[in-house]
Amino acid sequence: MDTRIQKIQAKIRRKKLDALLVTQPHNRRYLSGYSAMDHDIGESSGVLLIPARTAPILLTDFRFQIQAEQEVEGMEVLLYPKGLLALLSKLLPDIGITSLAFESHYTLHSVAEKMTAVLAKLNVSLYPLSGLVEEMRLIKDEDEIDLLRRSVHLNEEVFEEVFATIEPGQTEIDIALALESTMRRKGAEAPSFDSIVATGARSALPHAVPGDVPILKDQSLMIDMGLILDGYCSDMTRTFAVGNADEKYLKIHRIVRQAQVAATAAIRDGIAASAVDKIARDIIKDAGYGKNFGHALGHGVGLAVHENPRLSSRNRKHLKAGMIVTVEPGIYLPDWGGVRLENMVVVREDGCELLNRNTTWLDL
Amino acid sequence: MDTRIQKIQAKIRRKKLDALLVTQPHNRRYLSGYSAMDHDIGESSGVLLIPARTAPILLTDFRFQIQAEQEVEGMEVLLYPKGLLALLSKLLPDIGITSLAFESHYTLHSVAEKMTAVLAKLNVSLYPLSGLVEEMRLIKDEDEIDLLRRSVHLNEEVFEEVFATIEPGQTEIDIALALESTMRRKGAEAPSFDSIVATGARSALPHAVPGDVPILKDQSLMIDMGLILDGYCSDMTRTFAVGNADEKYLKIHRIVRQAQVAATAAIRDGIAASAVDKIARDIIKDAGYGKNFGHALGHGVGLAVHENPRLSSRNRKHLKAGMIVTVEPGIYLPDWGGVRLENMVVVREDGCELLNRNTTWLDL
Repeated sequence: MDTRIQKIQAKIRRKKLDALLVTQPHNRRYLSGYSAMDHDIGESSGVLLIPARTAPILLTDFRFQIQAEQEVEGMEVLLYPKGLLALLSKLLPDIGITSLAFESHYTLHSVAEKMTAVLAKLNVSLYPLSGLVEEMRLIKDEDEIDLLRRSVHLNEEVFEEVFATIEPGQTEIDIALALESTMRRKGAEAPSFDSIVATGARSALPHAVPGDVPILKDQSLMIDMGLILDGYCSDMTRTFAVGNADEKYLKIHRIVRQAQVAATAAIRDGIAASAVDKIARDIIKDAGYGKNFGHALGHGVGLAVHENPRLSSRNRKHLKAGMIVTVEPGIYLPDWGGVRLENMVVVREDGCELLNRNTTWLDL
Repeated sequence: MDTRIQKIQAKIRRKKLDALLVTQPHNRRYLSGYSAMDHDIGESSGVLLIPARTAPILLTDFRFQIQAEQEVEGMEVLLYPKGLLALLSKLLPDIGITSLAFESHYTLHSVAEKMTAVLAKLNVSLYPLSGLVEEMRLIKDEDEIDLLRRSVHLNEEVFEEVFATIEPGQTEIDIALALESTMRRKGAEAPSFDSIVATGARSALPHAVPGDVPILKDQSLMIDMGLILDGYCSDMTRTFAVGNADEKYLKIHRIVRQAQVAATAAIRDGIAASAVDKIARDIIKDAGYGKNFGHALGHGVGLAVHENPRLSSRNRKHLKAGMIVTVEPGIYLPDWGGVRLENMVVVREDGCELLNRNTTWLDL
C-alpha cells in the first residue's frame, strides 16, 4: 500500500493540489486495503482522503467502523455521524487543505454541486479529476497477476465441478445457484457478477438472466461466470451442447473459437486494442456473421470485473505488458442462440499469457 | 405505466422543460416496465427519454435490445451503437428538444459535464433535476403495496424454511447460501441485498459479511435478509439464540423489541419521521445503550431496498399514508454482539399496517 500511496501523492503534488478524495470503491481498496464495497453509489461505505504530503485518512460511518479499523493499516479512521460533508467542512480547514480533487467519474453530479458550494464558503476549491487511480490500476504487478491467476483457476475449478453434474431437466436457475454456492464454499468472496446460464435460443441475449427453464438434451448451454478472490475478479464464458452438438452448433462454435485463438495470438505489448478486436471481428465477418457480434472483443479485469482497457474497435490505445484482458468473441442468432467463448490473458512483452487452463475442450 | 408517464410529463411541462432523461434504474423501471438493472452506474442498461408531450423512448444498446423490446409496451426502443451521447446528439435536434432535464442524483459528474458541453453546441441546454420520479415513488398505490406485501411474505417463508434447518456447526456462509438459493427457488428475482448472517460477537458489525465461521450452540445469530419479487423488495432482520438465550441476551433483545413495538405503534399519517426515530431511540437510551444504536431507525422500501423516507433524527418531514418503511432498532456491543429486529410497515391514515406475519416469537 505504501508505494501506491506514495505514487498517488506524487501525482497529486504534480497537479499542485493539496489532496485527493477517493470515492470509487475499488480505488479505495487498492490504496487502503479497506474491502467494503458500496451497496450503490448513493450509499458509500466510506471515502479515502489523501493529502499530498501527510498520511491518508479513511472517513466512514458507524456501520463500517470495526471493519475499517481492522483492515486499514497505518491510517487513521474517522467517523462522520453527521454525514461526510459536515466532517469535511471541519477537517479540511483544520489540516490546511484548500484545493481538493475529487473523482469526477465516481461522484454524483448533485453531490459534487453541493460539496462545491459548501466548501467554497470555507475557501476550499474543488477540482474534478478522473482516472488518476485507474491509470495506476491498468498495469498489474506480479502480486496482482498472481491473485488474478488464482481467481481464474478457482473459477475454473468451480465450473468443472458444476459442469460434471449438469443434466437435462435441470433449470438455468439450478445451475446458476450451484455455481454461486460452489464459489462461496471454495472461498470466493462473492461472484464477480450475476452468473449467466442460458439455454438454447435464450443464449442469443448476451446478458441473459437465468430463468426457471429446463435444459434439454443436445441443446446448447452458455455459462458466463466469475468470482472475486481476495478482491480480484475472474470472468469466463463457456458454451457447449448438453449431449451432442448438431452441425450448425459446431460450425458457429468453430468460427468463434477461431476468432478467439487468432486474437489471442496477436496480443502483445504495443499492439493497438482496436487491432486485436479487428482480428476477431474480421474472422466472424468473413464467415458471414459480422452483424451477429455486437459487442466489443474484451475488457480489462482486476479489482473490477469490467475495467480498462477495452478491446474494442473504438480504442486506439496500445496494450502494455501487465494489462489483463478478456478475449470473448461471440455470435448471436436471435431465434437460434449464441456462442461466446471467453478467456483471460496477461499482456506480456512478447506475447500473452493465458490464465485459463481448461481450454483444450473448446476446440470442438 | 400510462398514468405514471402522464404525471411525469405534467411535472416536466410545469418546469417549462422539453424532456427528462431518466437514468436511475428503478425510476426507469417504474416508468417503463423495463426491468434490467445497471451493473454499476458506469455501465448503464439504458435510459428513458420522456419528452413533455410525446411518447417516451427507451434508449439502450445491443446487449439489451431483445429484453427491452419484450418488456416495454407502447414505447419505441432505439439502440446507441456509438454511445448514448452520439445518439442524443442526433435525436434531440430531430425531435425538437432544446431543454433537457437529467437526473442529477444518478448521473456522474464527469458524464454530466461532457454531455452539457457536447449538447450546448447543438443548442440543447441541460438542467440538473433531482428526485422528480422518486417523489412519485414515495407513495405506493395499492397494487404496489400488494407486491410489497407478497415480497415480505415470501421472504418470511424463506426465513422459516431455512430457520427450521439451522443447527450448531453450520457456518454463516452455509446459512446465507441456503437463504439465497431458497429465495430463488421460490421465485424471487434475486436477493434485495447480500444477506447478513452473523454469529455471536460478529453481529456487532451492523453490516457483517457472512464468513466461514461455525455457529455454536446457545450463541446468538443475526439474519438480515431480503428479496426482490416482481421488482419489489423486502427487508427483514431476525436475531435469536441457536438453543437457549442467556440472561444478557434476553435483556438486550427485550429492550430492542420494546423500542420496535413503541415506534411501530406511533407510525401514522402526519407524524414526523424524526419523532418515530426518537421514540425508539429514547427507550434504548433510557436503558443505557444510547451509544450502541448508531444507525437510523428505518428507511423506505419499494423498487429500491433503501429509499426515502428515512426514519432518522435528521428527517423532520412527515410520514404520509402509502409510504412503506422498515422499523429496525438495534443495540450493538463491540465484544458481545448485536441484536437488531426489523419489520416493514405501511403508513395508513390512522396507524400503520404491519406487513410481517412471523412476529410473535420476537417477544422473547
